[in-house]
Amino acid sequence: MKKIALFLSVMMICSITSAQFAGGMFGQQPEPLPDGYKPASTNTFLAQYPAVNAQTRQAIFRVVAPHADNVALDLAGKKYSMTKDEKGIWTCTSDPQVVGFHYYAILIDSVPVMDRNTEAFFGSNWESSGIEIPEGPEGDYYRFNKNIPHGQVRSLYYWSEINGMERHCNVYVPAEYEMNTDKTYPVMYLLHGWGEDENGWSNQGHMANIMDGLIHAGKAVPMIVVMDCGDIKTNSDVRKASTNDVTQIYINDLMPFIEKTFRTKNDRQNRAMAGLSRGGFQTTMTVFANLDKFAWMGTFSGFFSRPNQDVTEIFNGVFKDPAAFDKQMNLLFISTGTEERTPKEAVEALKAHGIKNIVYHESQGTAHEWLTWRRALNEFAPRLFK
Amino acid sequence: MKKIALFLSVMMICSITSAQFAGGMFGQQPEPLPDGYKPASTNTFLAQYPAVNAQTRQAIFRVVAPHADNVALDLAGKKYSMTKDEKGIWTCTSDPQVVGFHYYAILIDSVPVMDRNTEAFFGSNWESSGIEIPEGPEGDYYRFNKNIPHGQVRSLYYWSEINGMERHCNVYVPAEYEMNTDKTYPVMYLLHGWGEDENGWSNQGHMANIMDGLIHAGKAVPMIVVMDCGDIKTNSDVRKASTNDVTQIYINDLMPFIEKTFRTKNDRQNRAMAGLSRGGFQTTMTVFANLDKFAWMGTFSGFFSRPNQDVTEIFNGVFKDPAAFDKQMNLLFISTGTEERTPKEAVEALKAHGIKNIVYHESQGTAHEWLTWRRALNEFAPRLFK
Repeated sequence: MKKIALFLSVMMICSITSAQFAGGMFGQQPEPLPDGYKPASTNTFLAQYPAVNAQTRQAIFRVVAPHADNVALDLAGKKYSMTKDEKGIWTCTSDPQVVGFHYYAILIDSVPVMDRNTEAFFGSNWESSGIEIPEGPEGDYYRFNKNIPHGQVRSLYYWSEINGMERHCNVYVPAEYEMNTDKTYPVMYLLHGWGEDENGWSNQGHMANIMDGLIHAGKAVPMIVVMDCGDIKTNSDVRKASTNDVTQIYINDLMPFIEKTFRTKNDRQNRAMAGLSRGGFQTTMTVFANLDKFAWMGTFSGFFSRPNQDVTEIFNGVFKDPAAFDKQMNLLFISTGTEERTPKEAVEALKAHGIKNIVYHESQGTAHEWLTWRRALNEFAPRLFK
Repeated sequence: MKKIALFLSVMMICSITSAQFAGGMFGQQPEPLPDGYKPASTNTFLAQYPAVNAQTRQAIFRVVAPHADNVALDLAGKKYSMTKDEKGIWTCTSDPQVVGFHYYAILIDSVPVMDRNTEAFFGSNWESSGIEIPEGPEGDYYRFNKNIPHGQVRSLYYWSEINGMERHCNVYVPAEYEMNTDKTYPVMYLLHGWGEDENGWSNQGHMANIMDGLIHAGKAVPMIVVMDCGDIKTNSDVRKASTNDVTQIYINDLMPFIEKTFRTKNDRQNRAMAGLSRGGFQTTMTVFANLDKFAWMGTFSGFFSRPNQDVTEIFNGVFKDPAAFDKQMNLLFISTGTEERTPKEAVEALKAHGIKNIVYHESQGTAHEWLTWRRALNEFAPRLFK
C-alpha cells in the first residue's frame, strides 16, 4: 500500500490528466478498430490511428479538432477531405497505397502540420508524419528478425573544416564488428535524398535490418555503412544551406574521420558509394571526380541522365572509353522504380557503347518512394566487395 | 555547363518549388531577423523562426496560416495569442524563459500541433516542438566541444522476452572505448521521464556532450551509459502501455544484453542507475529491489517522498538501518530544481536518521525541466565508480 500511495502522489505532482494517465500507465483497453484494421507500425506507441488494413492497403486517419472549420489529409500527392463527427473528431479513409513508407501531412484550416499520432520522419525539410503500409513475406527482409545477430547504428559528430561546424553522421557496423577487434572492413557511403537527412536510411529505410539479414545469410560481406548529411548547414546563427560542394566534405572531412575512427579497409577496392534521388546525383558527382577512391557505386532513382543525351558525353566523358571505365569501376548499379521516370534508355545506350560493369535494377510497381530504395539496397549490397 | 544542365534537369524532375529550391540549395539570403535575435539551435536547418534573443531570453514564434481563425502558442505552461499580418503570418513574442530546453505546441484553431520549424522531441507521448534558450559560458558543458574527443551514442534493438518484442535502447560509449579493446568499463543506466523516450537524454539532455567533457577533463571515469525506454509497449497490433513491471525488463532482459554486447564490468560496484522524474521513481523501485546489483544511484526531480512521511518506512524500510544502507549504497544522489517541489525535507530526515552516503543537489532557479537534469547529470557522473 505504501508503494501505491507514493506512486499516486507522484502522479498528482506530475499533473498528468486522468485520461493520459489511464491510457499511458495502466494499459487501459483502447477502443476497438474497424475489422481488418490495425495501428500503423509508424504510430507513436499509444496511438491507435492511423489504422491500416493489410489486405486492402487502405488507412484510416483521425484528427481531434472540434473547433477547426476544415481538416484534410495530404498523402502521396492526393488531398482527402476529412469529415467531422459530433465529438469534433475528423476522419477519412485513404485509397489503397503502395506497400512501404509514405510521408503525409494533416491540413488544419489549410495549414499543413504533422499528425500527432506518428513518429517524426524528416522529409521535405521538416519533421513529417509517416505511415508504413505492411505487406506479406516480401517485407521480411526489412523487418526486425529476432533470430539473427544485429549490428549497431552509431550516432557521431565530427568536425568539418569546410563546413566550419560539427556535422552529424550515422555509422552502421555489422554484428560481428565487436567480436573481431583486429579485423578491418570495407565501407559503403550511403546517401539520402533531397529534404531528408542522415537518419533517413535508418528510420524510413530500415537499412540496419536489411544489412543484418544480408550479412547473416552470407549474401553480403560484413561491411561498415556510413550515412552522412547531404546538406551543408551554415553555422547556427544563420539558417540557410551553404553553397559549398558537399563532395569536398565527403572526401576531405568525412572519409578521414571515418577511417580514423573505425577499422576500415582504406583503398578504392574497399570503398563504395550509393545514394537515392539527389543522393544518387551526389554519388555520381563524388565518385566520378574521385575514381582513385571508389571502385563501386550505386544510384537509386538518381536522375542518371536526360533522354537523348549522348552517353559518351555525360559526366564529363567518364564513359567515353568503355574499357577504361570498366577497369576503374567494378560496379555501376543503376536502380529505379517502374512507376517513376526510368534511366533505362541511358543504361541501354551505355551497354551498347560497351560498358560491361553495369547492373540495372527495376523495382516493380513502385515510384519515387522508400520501397524502391529498400529493394535497391537489398540488391546492391550483396554485389559489393567481391 | 553540362554539369549545370544536368543538375537543372534533376531539379525539374524533383518538382521542388522554386522557393524551396532557392532557399534549400543555393543559400539564398534569409530575411534579416529583428536586432538581437538569432534562429534557435533547435530549429530545422532552414528555419529562421523561432528566433531567440540571448540577452532577454525571449523568443519570437511565427506560423504561416492565412486561412486559420486563431493561432496561439503554448510554451512552458502559458498560452500566448498570436497576431496575423496581411500575408497571413502569425507571430508572437514570449516572456523571458529559463535557459535550456522547453517543449512547446502551436494551436491552430485550438488543435495543438507541432511547429514545422523545429526538430522533433518526443515528450508527453508525442513528437513535440522544442526550443533551446541559449546562455553564456555556463552552458558550455552541454555544448559540442570541437577540441576534445567524442564518444558514440549507439542505437540498438534487443529482444525482450518479458515485453514479447524488440526494444530500442541507446548506449553511450566513451571516446576511448574503441582504442582500448581489452579494457572493461563500469555502466550507468540512465532513465528518462514520463512521456519521453530513450532518445530524450541524447536529444533534449545533450548527455554525450556532458559525458565527453567530464571524461576528457578527468572529472568522471570513462563509463558506458545505457538509455532504455521506461515504457513497455505492447506488440504493434495493439497500442497501449503494458502493465508489466519495467524493472523486470531492466534486470532480466536489458542488463544481460548489455553485458553480452559491451565490455562491461559486471558487479554491483560498477553499476549505477539514475533517472529523471518518473525515471527517478523507476530507479528507486529497481535499485532498492536489487541491492545486490547496484551500488550507486541518482534520482533527479524523482518524487523521492511525500512530506511528513516517516523515512524509516518509505521504500519498504530500506533506510531503517542507516549503517546497513551505507554499507550497501556508495551513493544516493538526490537532485531537484529550486523552482519545483523539492525533496529537501526527506533528505534532511535521512541525514538526521544517520544515512551518510547521501548527496543533495539543487539546481538554482530551475523547475521540472531539462536544465535541472543536465546540471544533475553533470554533478552526478563525476561521483561514480571512485
